[in-house]
Amino acid sequence: MGGIVALAGGVGAAKLLRGIVKVAPEEDVIAIVNTGDDIELHGLYICPDLDIITYTLAGIVDEVKGWGVKDDTFHCLEVLKRYGYETWFNLGDRDLATHIYRTHLLRMGYSLSQVTDEIRKALGVKARILPMSNDKVRTMIMTPIGRLNFQEYLVKRGAKDEVLGVEFEGVNVAKPAPGALEAMERADVIIVCPSNPIVSIGPILAIKGVRETLMETKANVVAISPIVGGAPLKGPADKLMRGLGLEVSAYGVASLYRDFIDAFVMDSVDEAQRKHVEALGLRVFVTNTVMRSLEDSIGLAEEILSMIKGLKQ
Amino acid sequence: MGGIVALAGGVGAAKLLRGIVKVAPEEDVIAIVNTGDDIELHGLYICPDLDIITYTLAGIVDEVKGWGVKDDTFHCLEVLKRYGYETWFNLGDRDLATHIYRTHLLRMGYSLSQVTDEIRKALGVKARILPMSNDKVRTMIMTPIGRLNFQEYLVKRGAKDEVLGVEFEGVNVAKPAPGALEAMERADVIIVCPSNPIVSIGPILAIKGVRETLMETKANVVAISPIVGGAPLKGPADKLMRGLGLEVSAYGVASLYRDFIDAFVMDSVDEAQRKHVEALGLRVFVTNTVMRSLEDSIGLAEEILSMIKGLKQ
Repeated sequence: MGGIVALAGGVGAAKLLRGIVKVAPEEDVIAIVNTGDDIELHGLYICPDLDIITYTLAGIVDEVKGWGVKDDTFHCLEVLKRYGYETWFNLGDRDLATHIYRTHLLRMGYSLSQVTDEIRKALGVKARILPMSNDKVRTMIMTPIGRLNFQEYLVKRGAKDEVLGVEFEGVNVAKPAPGALEAMERADVIIVCPSNPIVSIGPILAIKGVRETLMETKANVVAISPIVGGAPLKGPADKLMRGLGLEVSAYGVASLYRDFIDAFVMDSVDEAQRKHVEALGLRVFVTNTVMRSLEDSIGLAEEILSMIKGLKQ
Repeated sequence: MGGIVALAGGVGAAKLLRGIVKVAPEEDVIAIVNTGDDIELHGLYICPDLDIITYTLAGIVDEVKGWGVKDDTFHCLEVLKRYGYETWFNLGDRDLATHIYRTHLLRMGYSLSQVTDEIRKALGVKARILPMSNDKVRTMIMTPIGRLNFQEYLVKRGAKDEVLGVEFEGVNVAKPAPGALEAMERADVIIVCPSNPIVSIGPILAIKGVRETLMETKANVVAISPIVGGAPLKGPADKLMRGLGLEVSAYGVASLYRDFIDAFVMDSVDEAQRKHVEALGLRVFVTNTVMRSLEDSIGLAEEILSMIKGLKQ
């Protein structure tokens, strides 16, 4: 068995992954995670998507917010504010330990993928978690007020600025993390999680060799639409897609992935788009894709994996 | 007025300083603080004595422990432990903000004295607080199990090892912090706080130019004994003094300082040593030196400053 590879952003991906690891052997799962949203704050190196995935699989995520550690406190942040730091990016006290540890190991010369592996092992996660790259890639959003890094655009300014363009700074020289392409080549199944196609999956696809490997792999590649009923379940995917002149729909997402996916999963409310997506040359599965509970996640993961068995290799 | 300069270690010095700033204009007080106990842990730069002094003067110190921030939580430390860090050095969540801020500014190229000044200002402290040096000096304790840095000796191993020697690593090339010698030259009064004479005051005195400046200054220099009734009020001063072959007594402390102090303050319980200390050529004041409350601190500070007025310049 070549395992399951998941291309992942933050909350949507984490919700699907928590189901996948219940219906497949967890140690056969490899998540390749967006790091375009990473940010350095207060001298600490913060990887929001890696942390969401890791905390979720470790069972310690704050399930209400979808990020951070559950029952966390924010005492350190209160004092950082006294020191004049901007505190629009919430950092819980327990969560801070991860950033302190990561920053420390990176300064000692560990690569981000080594650090990520140490963190998931320490938190008892059996699935492997890979950053998309050990090199720095920064998702920048062009807006009328200027060029913003993604966290500034999303968290600090609440995604209120018009999107004029998106750029993945550094992506031209970034190499895939060691083992990432090999995992995609070897996999039985590659799942493109229901994450923001522009700023979560987009940076992963933009890394040299990723799109080519997805096109050439013998694995069945399936994507799940993060757009349900014409809107994202979470986050600013609609604003970003619209800003780039894309249709904000399941179809719009499918057309972004059409050159490397075999199948596309979309929500029942979007049934009407089925033919349209099939016309892209894709197998289409329609089901309930909204994951409110762990049971929803397990149900969707089961459906996806059994659908894939029905695809010809 | 040339102000009051205090040579300071941790808790004992902080208790006297909280009194001094109530009986003299706070902005006329300059504390020059030991940094030989500084330690880097988890990639963070920690200055225990600077923090104790700053937190105490800011009114946020944990008064029961004498260090750390009051009502602090230890949630980050719990998770750092999961990451395999040794957690014998207690770091509260609020306290961590100081270490994160300091580490960040140092990495950006600020000097330790600049960082220390930013911290005290942010916390609303009007007294100036100077590290003894911007250069790295590390107090190392020679023991039968080897060379330990001071925090390992004190906190990790509970000061249980026999002391064979003490060394201030780096002191030969360390320069006094900018303004430290000038403050001592200009001061009306220099107070050697009731801190450990070996590992708190000792490193400050070992910095090039400090002892000479203390001998030459026109200020009245007065020391307060940290040894009361033959034992330190707090900490391992007795073990360190004994290890170095010194008498563990007020007299023992006075003899360490005799070449640069004009007067010596010791506790009433040590009245019997008065003549002995006077024989060193020092003016001796005997009073209650144990500071249990803020009122005690204010009372002692008042007594010291009025005694000094009686000394000839």
